[in-house]
Parts: sequence; C-alpha cells; structure tokens
Amino acid sequence: MTAPKINHIKETCLYVKDIEKSRYFYEEILGLERIHYKKDQHLFLKIGKNVLLLFNAQYTKNQTSPPPHDGEGRQHIAFETDIGQYSLWKQHLHRHHITIEQEQTWPNGGLSFYFRDPDNLCLEIVQPGIWGF
Amino acid sequence: MTAPKINHIKETCLYVKDIEKSRYFYEEILGLERIHYKKDQHLFLKIGKNVLLLFNAQYTKNQTSPPPHDGEGRQHIAFETDIGQYSLWKQHLHRHHITIEQEQTWPNGGLSFYFRDPDNLCLEIVQPGIWGF
Repeated sequence: MTAPKINHIKETCLYVKDIEKSRYFYEEILGLERIHYKKDQHLFLKIGKNVLLLFNAQYTKNQTSPPPHDGEGRQHIAFETDIGQYSLWKQHLHRHHITIEQEQTWPNGGLSFYFRDPDNLCLEIVQPGIWGF
Repeated sequence: MTAPKINHIKETCLYVKDIEKSRYFYEEILGLERIHYKKDQHLFLKIGKNVLLLFNAQYTKNQTSPPPHDGEGRQHIAFETDIGQYSLWKQHLHRHHITIEQEQTWPNGGLSFYFRDPDNLCLEIVQPGIWGF
C-alpha cells in the first residue's frame, strides 16, 4: 500500500497572542503579502506557493468547522531567500532594530540566521541549498 | 525601506511527544521521505521543496545552538496533492483506519479534508488551487 503523493506543504501555521502586533511585524517589516486579515483572529499571508497562517488560538481552539486546532510556545519556521538577498535581509532587520540571535554555517557552506517575532517565535532566513535541494 | 524577498517557507516544524510513533505515522503511513532521524529527538522529512521538521520539544527547548524553540498544542498544517490523488488519499487513510474528521468545499469549488496525527495534530490534504494560486 504505497501512499499517494504529496507535492508540498501548502499551509504552515503559527499561533500568536496579538494579531495586530503580528500583522505589523509580518506585513510592514517582513513585507509579506496579505491574503486575508480578521482583526483579533487571524492573518493569512502568501509566500511563493506557500501560505503562512497566523492564528489567535483563543478563536481556533473551540471552533468546530474547520476542526479545532491551537498551539503555543516558541515555534520555529524558516524562510528561504535568494543568495543575493541574504545580506540585505540582515541589513533590513538591523534597520528595524531586530536582533540577529545567531548565524549558522551549514555543512555544505550555506548560511542562515535566526531572529524572533513579537511572540518570541524562532524565525530563520536561509540561503538556498542548505538542505541539498 | 522595502523588505528583500522571501521565496518560500523552507522549514515547517511540528512538536510531538513520541518521535518513533510519529516516524511510523509520517514515514510508513503518509509515505514521506526521510532526510534525518535521531531517536527520541527529531525526524526531518522532505516534501517537494519544503522540509517538515518534527521535534521532541524536550530537546529543543533548552538547546543553545540552534537557538531554543518549542511548541505544544494541536498544530495545523496542510499538504497539497494532485487533484487525481485526492480520492486515493481518502482511500489510503481509510485502509489505515485513520478517521477523516471533516471535508470542506472551498469558495472556488476545491476540496480538502482533515485528519489527526498520533499527537492529535490537525493535518489537512488540500487540492491545488483552493487558495487561488
């Protein structure tokens, strides 16, 4: 019984406390493109073919349709940028007084760095190819 | 100060309690391709150009490099499949006695359905185009 195929991860979710604070950070600072915003409840963003969904878990944890979901903690996700944009990202975050927590050189020589969003979630900007594909 | 560009979400993380139980579910049932497995600690999977990272937060919450991260709750992610594989996914999960919790018809007519992983995380299989891209 071989499983059918999955092409990619379409939706990635982060759970945040203050959607307006997150909206400012992800839209105004990171420059991500809005799909939908509902005050206090959620913000949906388009990133290439992927969708990043930010939820206030107070609203999703008791819903019935779609099924309930929720989360907390310092979740991690990584964004890929072009190699020529990597240093620009560091400069851009620096101009917005966002601390670069750590920079990493991966086994194949690729670089990435980590920073935090307003909920202390662990975000990363990675160069292409650090995973070998 | 326009932000540099992000091409896609490279890494999506889920936090689970028992990595071996998750390994069986994500590899043996969902058929995802392993990148790396470390007993009790993590499982990294390749899905198209994306990477799905499953972590036992007991190990990541106190680490120093990469920076600490963690999570709990019934996180949600969605996998995209080809339209011709969508019904096969329902049959495949049915054969593995996995309950389809809910099916949804989206405004443009596309379909998706929800099911749970061993940690009660909220997984979804979506047809292409439900987000309009």
